[in-house]
Formats: sequence, structure tokens, C-alpha cells
Amino acid sequence: MKVYVIGIGLIGGSMALDIKSLQPEATIFGIDADESHLAQAIALGVVEAAATFEDLGDADFVIVSVPVDVALIILPKVLDSIGEQTVVFEVGSTKMPICEAVVNHAKRRNFIATHPIAGTEFSGPSAAITGLFQGKTNIICEVEKTTFKLQEKALDLFKQMGMRIRYMDPKSHDKHIAYVSHLSHISAFMLGKTVIQKEKHEQDIFDMAGSGFESTVRLAKSSPAMWTPIFKQNRKQVVKTLEEYISNLTHFKDLLVNEDYDAIFEEMESVNRIKEILNGMISQIPNKESIRK
Amino acid sequence: MKVYVIGIGLIGGSMALDIKSLQPEATIFGIDADESHLAQAIALGVVEAAATFEDLGDADFVIVSVPVDVALIILPKVLDSIGEQTVVFEVGSTKMPICEAVVNHAKRRNFIATHPIAGTEFSGPSAAITGLFQGKTNIICEVEKTTFKLQEKALDLFKQMGMRIRYMDPKSHDKHIAYVSHLSHISAFMLGKTVIQKEKHEQDIFDMAGSGFESTVRLAKSSPAMWTPIFKQNRKQVVKTLEEYISNLTHFKDLLVNEDYDAIFEEMESVNRIKEILNGMISQIPNKESIRK
Repeated sequence: MKVYVIGIGLIGGSMALDIKSLQPEATIFGIDADESHLAQAIALGVVEAAATFEDLGDADFVIVSVPVDVALIILPKVLDSIGEQTVVFEVGSTKMPICEAVVNHAKRRNFIATHPIAGTEFSGPSAAITGLFQGKTNIICEVEKTTFKLQEKALDLFKQMGMRIRYMDPKSHDKHIAYVSHLSHISAFMLGKTVIQKEKHEQDIFDMAGSGFESTVRLAKSSPAMWTPIFKQNRKQVVKTLEEYISNLTHFKDLLVNEDYDAIFEEMESVNRIKEILNGMISQIPNKESIRK
Repeated sequence: MKVYVIGIGLIGGSMALDIKSLQPEATIFGIDADESHLAQAIALGVVEAAATFEDLGDADFVIVSVPVDVALIILPKVLDSIGEQTVVFEVGSTKMPICEAVVNHAKRRNFIATHPIAGTEFSGPSAAITGLFQGKTNIICEVEKTTFKLQEKALDLFKQMGMRIRYMDPKSHDKHIAYVSHLSHISAFMLGKTVIQKEKHEQDIFDMAGSGFESTVRLAKSSPAMWTPIFKQNRKQVVKTLEEYISNLTHFKDLLVNEDYDAIFEEMESVNRIKEILNGMISQIPNKESIRK
């Protein structure tokens, strides 16, 4: 089996490691615009050799795991280059623009639009880890537009990686993911900014930070190159979630200004049921020890 | 050695477990307004026996680990009840009000104002874990107001628990802790609220939540009974941090509305240095396996 990973970072690299571990006879090739990334991925054993788009004709799988703006540009070119039996999938955090970009492509039926809900705050080939997708959800959009046999081939791979599959239309995906992923990232980035602004004048403040701050701000370590195009492509939904979040924060602040402590208690108590909601999720905190430095 | 823990939850209970583990000859007594908490703490072996304020005369240590509004009321009564050599410390997340509450007490010199920066999002006796304070910072306020010999006795205990000590005036403590702790909690609570509001109409949304959301919203599991009085006591500082946070979020939203993606990239890139700042912190994520259910 020949697998080509285009963009060998956290997601593409972790998929490469899983596939090699599940199917040792597979050969994993890497394609990356950043030659130092590619060299690092080969040196780390994440992929075996470098390749180019010209090699894609005999690919079994092509995994497109690049920033979502780059995906819009290269995915049609990838589909131009593949063979009849090649499955191409893309793993970005927005699904409407990518589905629109290939809707009329002659090889649309070789493509499957996915969003594996998995990751860490790290990026680049060194962030790749084995088992990242175990127990995670993979959202597949417009599955009916993919040839049935190639659907099966892709689903078999995802299931081997331990993912459970959920089908959704691209519009619903982009709307909901704004709440449970994109908003969390902005919340963390702006929390980090607020505290760093303060720290300019008070160097010692971070000595006082505990595990609570570390957890809440964790996503502020994420890659701007990855996240700027996500926010761009999902701009309307993200703006809406931000408006709702800012409104809720302003309401809480007003309760505090007005010293309405009963209402403050009730606000927090009503959100406490997030416990049960999160308990319903499969535990998805990555194992720190398994993250390669 | 006799130790009395008043309020046997996450912090008081974890201290009890550490002391018993470090000094097996110590007897740990529990005092708790909630009789079921006390019974549970004894059943779990967190404390050995129930006690009352009348027993405090022969205490070596009294640990006051109750919500900060309750601490204001009971601390003077505790000081009224103790012996000459008893050390009393309180562990809440605000320090100005507690220091003011006992400033003129005849036994002020038996009291040491502390804030161990440690915890999890869980509460109650079952949340108590051994080793919670290992490698954590303990902030001590107005140390000069505590008798030197009793300071030494307390510091020795804190160091045995593995804490590093930092001295700070109560005003600075309350100001800085608003940024690195109190704001994180509100940020998480309101993130949870925003997503739950949406989920009312979209039951499936949490299936899409990954480890990023889980991490960012974790503190929204925290106890409203503990946090409402903290926000009350540190109201002015917390309102200020919320204003700054809301202003930063609004600015980010405006950049997105105006499609200024270069500025959005730079916003995130400038916050990325939180990586180095957090790397400078001693790793403080509690070990999930060590949390008793």
C-alpha cells in the first residue's frame, strides 16, 4: 500500500505513524512545501521518503493535512494527479469551503471530506504521535458524493485507527464546530493576551499561575498559520459565537458590578452540568508522556 | 502532633492526607459544618475523628479550608479557642479580607495567611488526594505578623509537602491572582454557558467536542459555593480583569468582522510566547489516576 501525506504536521504525521504501525508493509511518502519539515519528518521516521504530486498516480491514499486555505488550492491539483482507485481525504477544521472547492471536479468521487476531532496544542512533524485518533470522533461530510468502494476503504482505515464515525452536512459541521472548537481557541488566546499584557509590568505574575490557568490557556499555544485561515473560512459563525460569549461575559461582569451574588451563584451552578456532558465524552486528553519532544 | 482541619474538602482533605503520610504519628481531626462531609471524610480515612472548636486548645496546627466568606466569620473564633503554641493557617484564594479580619486579634501572631496554588476542579472530601502540593507555590502574606517560631513550624510543614514559598503583600496577591486564577474560572464558566445555550437546540453538539474544549472549559466544573464568595471578596480586581478580557475579545471580533487577517495572525503569534511562560512553570496538571472517585 502506498500512502502520501501532504503536510506532515501534527495530524498528517500522526496518521502516518498510525498507518505504519497498523500496516507495516505500507510505504508512507511525504510531500511538504517546507523542506525542513520534510527532512525532519524523514529523520524522525514519521514518513519514509519524499515525493511530489507527479507520484500520486499509484497512491492508495492521499492525506491532505495542510492549513485550510492551502487545502482549497492544492486539493483540485491532487485530484488532477491521482489514479482511479486512489482515496483522497482532507482533515481540516472547516468543511463547507473545501466541499465547495471540489464540487464539480471530475474526481470528486475519489474524495472524502473528514474532520478527525483530535489534536494537541503542538504543531510540526515533531508533534506527531501514535494513537492520537484512538477513541476520537471523525466527522465525515457529504459521504454520498464518494464512490461506495472508496468510502469503505477509507472507513476501514479510520476504524483501524480507533475512530468512531459521524456523518454530517458541511454547513452543520462548520456551525457546531465554531462553538466546541473555534471559540475555545479564541477564548484561550485572549485569556493569554490579557494576562501577558499585565505581566509586562509585573514580571512575577506567572509564578502564581496554577494548573487551572495552564489548562484554560493551553490552546493559546496553537499555530497562527493553521488557525488564521480557519477563522477566515468560518468567519460568520465564529463572529456569532464570539458575540454570544462576549454577551455572557458582560452579563456576568454586570452581575458582579451590581453585587448580585445569588445570580452569580446560579450562573455557575447552571453551567456545572458541563461535568455530566464532559463525562459523556470519551476521555480525550492526550497522554503527555506519549508526546515526542 | 494534633492537627485539626476545618472544612474537609479538596484542599483541607489533601493537606490531611499529606500530613498523615509524612508524620504517621500525627492525629488528624476534622471539623465540618456539613455532617455528611465529615462522616464521608472519616469513612475515606481522610481524617481520623470528628472534633469541635472546644478541642482546639491543644492543637499543633489548625487548617482553615472553608469558603472565603465562612473563613472571615470563623477565623476569629478559631483564634479565640487555640493554645499559645498553636499555628493556624487559612488557605483561601483571597488574602486582603482575611488579613483585615484578624489584624487586631490578640492571637494574630499565631496566624499565618497562605494561599497554596494547587487544586483540581473537584470538591468535597472525595476530591482529596495525596501529593497535591508537591512542586506547587504557596503564597504567604504578612509573614512578619506571625511569631517567628510558629512561622518556622508552618514553613517546615509546607516544605515537607513539597511546596516552594513565596512572600507577598495581600493587596498584590489579590490583584495578581485575579488575572491568573479568578479570570480563568469566569472564562471557563462563560464558555461552558455559551456552548450549553446552543446545545439546548442542538443535542448532538458535544459529540464534536475534543480535548481542546475539555481543557478550556475544565474549570467550569468548579464549586459555586466556593467561587461566589471569592468573586465577592475580590470584586474590584475581578471586574477589572473581565473588562480587559472583554475588550480583547471585542477587538479580536472586530478584526474578524473587518477581515484583517494579518492582524489576527499577529494577535495569536504574540500570545504564542505563553508556551515559554508555561514551560517556566513547574508542571502542575494533576495526575488523573491519583484522583479518587
